[in-house]
Amino acid sequence: MGTVPLLSDEEVSAVRGTDYVNNFWRALAHDPALLKATWDRLKVVMAPGALDPLVKEMLYIAVSTANGCTYCVHSHTAAAKAKGMSDEQHGELLAVIGMAMQTNGLVTGLQVEVDEAFQA
Amino acid sequence: MGTVPLLSDEEVSAVRGTDYVNNFWRALAHDPALLKATWDRLKVVMAPGALDPLVKEMLYIAVSTANGCTYCVHSHTAAAKAKGMSDEQHGELLAVIGMAMQTNGLVTGLQVEVDEAFQA
Amino acid sequence: MGTVPLLSDEEVSAVRGTDYVNNFWRALAHDPALLKATWDRLKVVMAPGALDPLVKEMLYIAVSTANGCTYCVHSHTAAAKAKGMSDEQHGELLAVIGMAMQTNGLVTGLQVEVDEAFQA
Amino acid sequence: MGTVPLLSDEEVSAVRGTDYVNNFWRALAHDPALLKATWDRLKVVMAPGALDPLVKEMLYIAVSTANGCTYCVHSHTAAAKAKGMSDEQHGELLAVIGMAMQTNGLVTGLQVEVDEAFQA
Amino acid sequence: MGTVPLLSDEEVSAVRGTDYVNNFWRALAHDPALLKATWDRLKVVMAPGALDPLVKEMLYIAVSTANGCTYCVHSHTAAAKAKGMSDEQHGELLAVIGMAMQTNGLVTGLQVEVDEAFQA
Amino acid sequence: MGTVPLLSDEEVSAVRGTDYVNNFWRALAHDPALLKATWDRLKVVMAPGALDPLVKEMLYIAVSTANGCTYCVHSHTAAAKAKGMSDEQHGELLAVIGMAMQTNGLVTGLQVEVDEAFQA
Repeated sequence: MGTVPLLSDEEVSAVRGTDYVNNFWRALAHDPALLKATWDRLKVVMAPGALDPLVKEMLYIAVSTANGCTYCVHSHTAAAKAKGMSDEQHGELLAVIGMAMQTNGLVTGLQVEVDEAFQA
Repeated sequence: MGTVPLLSDEEVSAVRGTDYVNNFWRALAHDPALLKATWDRLKVVMAPGALDPLVKEMLYIAVSTANGCTYCVHSHTAAAKAKGMSDEQHGELLAVIGMAMQTNGLVTGLQVEVDEAFQA
Repeated sequence: MGTVPLLSDEEVSAVRGTDYVNNFWRALAHDPALLKATWDRLKVVMAPGALDPLVKEMLYIAVSTANGCTYCVHSHTAAAKAKGMSDEQHGELLAVIGMAMQTNGLVTGLQVEVDEAFQA
Repeated sequence: MGTVPLLSDEEVSAVRGTDYVNNFWRALAHDPALLKATWDRLKVVMAPGALDPLVKEMLYIAVSTANGCTYCVHSHTAAAKAKGMSDEQHGELLAVIGMAMQTNGLVTGLQVEVDEAFQA
Repeated sequence: MGTVPLLSDEEVSAVRGTDYVNNFWRALAHDPALLKATWDRLKVVMAPGALDPLVKEMLYIAVSTANGCTYCVHSHTAAAKAKGMSDEQHGELLAVIGMAMQTNGLVTGLQVEVDEAFQA
Repeated sequence: MGTVPLLSDEEVSAVRGTDYVNNFWRALAHDPALLKATWDRLKVVMAPGALDPLVKEMLYIAVSTANGCTYCVHSHTAAAKAKGMSDEQHGELLAVIGMAMQTNGLVTGLQVEVDEAFQA
């Protein structure tokens, strides 16, 4: 069920070295350099900063939903819940995604030109 | 520059009634029922709730970017700045979008199966 | 304004042979075999059949909008209007596109599993 | 199998009140306000009007296919068949979707500029 | 599991006439004209030419991944491996896809205007 | 024309230090850490390896086209031409992109299930 076989715990721990390892890293571990680059960057990007980690997880869900990435929606929804996303926040997140998708379609169908006021 | 001509101020104010009206509403005003349904729903969805309005604008930018909607990225970036998005927050927003796009591609290319632990 | 220069009328007429030639064919004419394969197939697919040509143009707009193809939305909206699409039909087309985009987002965000009743 | 558990018949009927309830509504019912807004709008948009309901279902399939929404393609194909879509119409729908996807790719790869003749 | 039932070997061989037939052709065989048009064109496009067939398979994987087409990623990854794609090439293909997805997101989020130097 | 103003030559050279700098880097330079991470990774990913740099540029064009990223299609088409992409190779690249888009649409519309033979 994938385009590469998943590695076992032993094989993965050699390149990543933590306890629980989800399928994304088991698959990516076929290419240790790609795994390392992705992992190192992910830690930096998702760390607390000007945006808090829960907001970052919700942004991740938004992008992954628009791109139709099943695995990513599942894994980042689980991560957002683990970071405290409430049912009400989840509902509002979905409502904003739905609204954005809808007006993306309307704007593109209408081919609305960008207002000068919006240019940086 | 669009698939419908934009309405004038006078024509739009008849169906919407505020001062500054951006091009999206000017274009949508060709179909007053669709404009009203979209406008009424947008006000509800983007209102303060379990998520604050700035977070909602950033989620909107995330979806619009993944969908490649030029107008939407411009208008909601302008809206987010108007609601106080700092340059640092903008930079982190872009970094999360870029990261999510990247791992969406890796996961889809690898066809990674969803971990049982992620199922609700 | 493109990744290939557009051909002149004289150059295009040699490979296509009609009077008015829009920019898509002028660009595609750099590869006469690709132009011919595309043109020949397009005529078959868009011809009257079990679906009428105006419905086919609206389906084309729907796909092109979801894919964010600016040129395609413009050219097929012009074609649909030339085939008699009324303002009311255009409005309903946009409303369906917006609705579909919205529920596409909700379903993907929720990762709803397909009902058995929907399997062929 | 989803990012929220599906509600039971009893739980859903409290917020929607019809007999057969498919998984989309069972999932969405976690947020009754979002369910109600979506359901109310869907009934208006998909009702007979300037476009007939079968055409609207096919437009829905076209958007959902371009967005890669598995659930939506299944549910709206089932709905279109229930509204009388013939095998021949289904075949032509798929042919138009395929053609549109193809020329969307060619146009975007060539970055063809919109003809002045197509501007509203 | 699909919007049309899959045909049996006997039914498919009548329209295609080779031994092993994968599910895509079994499904498409419901519309023999669409199957024939797709098959005939595919053979031409994927044949050796200015690009070698393995490069073409990798390009196919790249497009299919960006579009989130599960079946297509699986079938063309299998085809690429059959044509000799090494694990190292597969890893680099994924790295390029991930990089492109990432900068697509950054560019779209920033709404960077095309440099004059890039215009054909 | 963008969501951030472009930096001048002097401002950019401080963070990147080469002569000609295209608009993507001028825009990204507002966030020096993001620019550096992207630049450093891009150099690694696009370097000669198991795949040659021209193939990598064509893969980049394929992903960017499917994602509808205007800037990216322009910049990587220019880069591919600079690395020797011939008109014939460009034509075949576009033909493969168009074919992949088309069958992505057909497969998704048909919801074809993955053959067991394709599973890794």
